[in-house]
Amino acid sequence: MTKEQLFQQITHKRTFLCVGLDTDLAKMPTHLREADDALFLFNQAIVDATAPYCVAYKPNLAFYECYGVKGLAAFERTVAYIKQHYPDHLVIADAKRGDIGNTSTMYAQSFFAEGHVDAVTVAPYMGEDSVKPFLTYEGRWVILLAATSNKGALDFQMTADASGERLFEKVLRISKDWGSSENMMYVVGATRGSLFSDVRRIVPHHFLLVPGIGAQGGSLHEVCQYGMNEQCGLLVNSSRAIIYASTGLDFADAAAKAASEVQQQMDEKLKAHGL
Amino acid sequence: MTKEQLFQQITHKRTFLCVGLDTDLAKMPTHLREADDALFLFNQAIVDATAPYCVAYKPNLAFYECYGVKGLAAFERTVAYIKQHYPDHLVIADAKRGDIGNTSTMYAQSFFAEGHVDAVTVAPYMGEDSVKPFLTYEGRWVILLAATSNKGALDFQMTADASGERLFEKVLRISKDWGSSENMMYVVGATRGSLFSDVRRIVPHHFLLVPGIGAQGGSLHEVCQYGMNEQCGLLVNSSRAIIYASTGLDFADAAAKAASEVQQQMDEKLKAHGL
Repeated sequence: MTKEQLFQQITHKRTFLCVGLDTDLAKMPTHLREADDALFLFNQAIVDATAPYCVAYKPNLAFYECYGVKGLAAFERTVAYIKQHYPDHLVIADAKRGDIGNTSTMYAQSFFAEGHVDAVTVAPYMGEDSVKPFLTYEGRWVILLAATSNKGALDFQMTADASGERLFEKVLRISKDWGSSENMMYVVGATRGSLFSDVRRIVPHHFLLVPGIGAQGGSLHEVCQYGMNEQCGLLVNSSRAIIYASTGLDFADAAAKAASEVQQQMDEKLKAHGL
Repeated sequence: MTKEQLFQQITHKRTFLCVGLDTDLAKMPTHLREADDALFLFNQAIVDATAPYCVAYKPNLAFYECYGVKGLAAFERTVAYIKQHYPDHLVIADAKRGDIGNTSTMYAQSFFAEGHVDAVTVAPYMGEDSVKPFLTYEGRWVILLAATSNKGALDFQMTADASGERLFEKVLRISKDWGSSENMMYVVGATRGSLFSDVRRIVPHHFLLVPGIGAQGGSLHEVCQYGMNEQCGLLVNSSRAIIYASTGLDFADAAAKAASEVQQQMDEKLKAHGL
């Protein structure tokens, strides 16, 4: 999917919501847990219910890998289901990968050649040769960690060098030349508020994947105020607040309602920015 | 496995070699490639051949994940095989994971509760809460990236803050209080030479996992000169130079020979350090 296609989806559907598929057996409705393919069945119902209100899905690999081979099969089946039934939705593998060049090449192959996801999240610590192998696939995206939403982001990401440049700023400045705003996005946590202004000074045109609204407490208003650009430039993720809106028989309806409410807020934000 | 047990293995077997199982269908002997379980069969032969000469195995997840469900099954079967037949060998999942707390908890569960590996490599970019969930399993280890062996290590890891402290030094200084030398090790690339002195000033007692000798060009001599401590404190990894020493029918014998040669060099280094 190109940046222009993503922008068109956003303006057409009046939403820039990404639904995070952090699918956890312990949190899903009890009537589903017993099924052999519970992870997939849950995802299928959530996707069918929320597709009108979002432009992207983000399955989090950790939640599938913890069930071993069976979990990975559920991940693959989920990706295939979305691609078959909702081909206009961006599928992001939230994997936080990154290793030396020949290893990153294998990871890139996993996700982009063998798998069919559109984007993968990548960690920047190991530098250019750990990221570039992911950038060789036409129409696919690297989403590089910049300023994450968690408390631990303060441990290293905010450290300033002698010139005053913080690590997340250096990551943005250096890495933006590895690709372009056509094949790279950045993770910037919704909990970081006005820091979005600092991010936009360095990468005005890139899309940002924004976790941290909902369960983590970030503000959609602040994210849009400081982070929205001329092509929206935001994919705001919500996982738990949508997919676990109810743990009863009505879980899919409740997810649709939660996603729809976010979509309406996003429509307002798009209008307010003339989009 | 405790630190003391690892040290005993090293002095008993006169080696601190870790064999990296970066198993690649394209590089293995042609007579094995056709087999349905080629990845496992190759690993089994390599492990049986090299076990006397090493104290650890490090399967690299990327090389299994790229074959999807089938690859993951080969990974799990390899780990189970090592644990059954060579229970004194440390098994390191080279995965470079790390995410927000609730997600890292799931990754830790994958490797330590569901899986049976002894250690997992973790990336530090997301800070304390991304690492701590891995430290809650008795007898298991986090191996945190500090100064990696690749060229991209220079992009961010060597950046100094206003006080002159480089990022990898800050990672060492801050993170060493998250656990102890009994449950944390650090990745320091063999290509970094005298930088091992700087590492040892901060973490004198921790084990270091050292990739980068062999194919990547690092020097065992320098690593030992600057990095060895009173309990050896080094696990030096070699992957390609051992497991692809031959691509013929004699691949296992060639791997044994290559591992044996490294073991003999390591024996000399241990003696030279009075161990």
